[in-house]
Amino acid sequence: MSGKVFLVGAGPGDPDLLTVKALRLLQSAEAVLYDELVSPDILKLVPATAQVHNVGKRCGKKKIQQQEINFLMIALADSGLRVVRLKSGDPMIFGRAGEEIEALRKGNIEYEIVPGVTSALGAAASAEIPLTHRRESSAVVFITAHQASDSDAADWNKLAGSGATLVIYMPGHHYAEMAAKLKAAGLRGDTRCAIISRATTPYQRTFATTVARLEFATQLPSPTLLVVGDVVRLAALEHFDPALANNELAVPAEMISALATDSISEEPVA
Amino acid sequence: MSGKVFLVGAGPGDPDLLTVKALRLLQSAEAVLYDELVSPDILKLVPATAQVHNVGKRCGKKKIQQQEINFLMIALADSGLRVVRLKSGDPMIFGRAGEEIEALRKGNIEYEIVPGVTSALGAAASAEIPLTHRRESSAVVFITAHQASDSDAADWNKLAGSGATLVIYMPGHHYAEMAAKLKAAGLRGDTRCAIISRATTPYQRTFATTVARLEFATQLPSPTLLVVGDVVRLAALEHFDPALANNELAVPAEMISALATDSISEEPVA
Repeated sequence: MSGKVFLVGAGPGDPDLLTVKALRLLQSAEAVLYDELVSPDILKLVPATAQVHNVGKRCGKKKIQQQEINFLMIALADSGLRVVRLKSGDPMIFGRAGEEIEALRKGNIEYEIVPGVTSALGAAASAEIPLTHRRESSAVVFITAHQASDSDAADWNKLAGSGATLVIYMPGHHYAEMAAKLKAAGLRGDTRCAIISRATTPYQRTFATTVARLEFATQLPSPTLLVVGDVVRLAALEHFDPALANNELAVPAEMISALATDSISEEPVA
Repeated sequence: MSGKVFLVGAGPGDPDLLTVKALRLLQSAEAVLYDELVSPDILKLVPATAQVHNVGKRCGKKKIQQQEINFLMIALADSGLRVVRLKSGDPMIFGRAGEEIEALRKGNIEYEIVPGVTSALGAAASAEIPLTHRRESSAVVFITAHQASDSDAADWNKLAGSGATLVIYMPGHHYAEMAAKLKAAGLRGDTRCAIISRATTPYQRTFATTVARLEFATQLPSPTLLVVGDVVRLAALEHFDPALANNELAVPAEMISALATDSISEEPVA
């Protein structure tokens, strides 16, 4: 009997942010292939009887090629196992799911995609940054730093300079370079930025700055996300760590509602 | 004793796509304020003893003003109740959470934000459309049709014309107008589009077309999402309903892997 592959989003880190379906699939998995960024607390949910494979690729040091992941996934399903291919966040956002789906179709393997809470949403909830807001931003862009460097600069400039909130996945540590790209796209120096490290886990740290001062930002442990846009001023600044150097926006809690009020329109919305 | 408000994402529709945390909060809620788009199957999870309020606003016919929602939410928490403010998808994406958070801060009410699977991710998983892909699109934009009509056209054109996958929330039924805006932003007429109605529910229907033929698309029941971009050609076309008029892209299943293969690069990624 042939098995099945479930491409499952593991959410942003907190096991409580798995979907009900993802939890059930993990608890009944016979084989699990997971990425480096999946949190250890989530892996603890996998039964001891399951085969567990770390197929993570990280920081350019590829442990396993995509083709090898595809091969392993298909071989395990072909041997009749219920396979969970576990991806941090959501599989359809920067998860290479498209390539794995293609391999599964070619291999004639039954599969199903289970969405998850993508990291941007976990980080936004934890730092209390609304990614859209009727006055501040009515669109949000998810992009990677890799896109910023390699692809068509015109496209990057359009996205970054559109006024939408930007969430940059895997921003890397070259903040000066990122700041230069944001300025080149036309962003004001005083546009707010937040760096959120290990969002929704007990190790979450959040750093607030501006495009002008981004290059001086503290390096925080991966995974990190960089949120850029005026909505960052609505964040709950008590979550920002005043112990971090240059965290100049970590203003006292009593100033928060003044900041927020200032930016809310009284106009009715159509 | 003062209560607490949980701003909770209900996910795209399927109760199995609630997070573990959202499910627990719903099952222990003493009051629930929900939006029109939250699915009935999810509301069934609320205990019979809880106060349940529909605070939905829909199609311009406002039942309740935002200020009244804020007032009710605060009054219930002030009376000591555990209040779940339930929003379809994720609260930080087109959910007006920013305004409700501001009201809760001003009202000195304890609150917590619980992220959810935003509708775009539910729809992408169900229709098997990877929203990013290393060859087709390395960014994704979430935007509303409302943004398309009212805000700065230059910003809309930048976002739509950037080459990123577009997910248009609440696209409405003026497809001819939407198609005109997409063409004005520079999109090719043969750019693929998918309309996904009631994603992840038993009533899901998916319609595939192109920008050029979007104006002839079948009207499907709300909530719908419009996905625009070359990634739509990677979709599992067997999910598309051939019974829908003009669903010209619903090609036989055996053609799918040919379509997919055609678009995948063999190049390694850095």
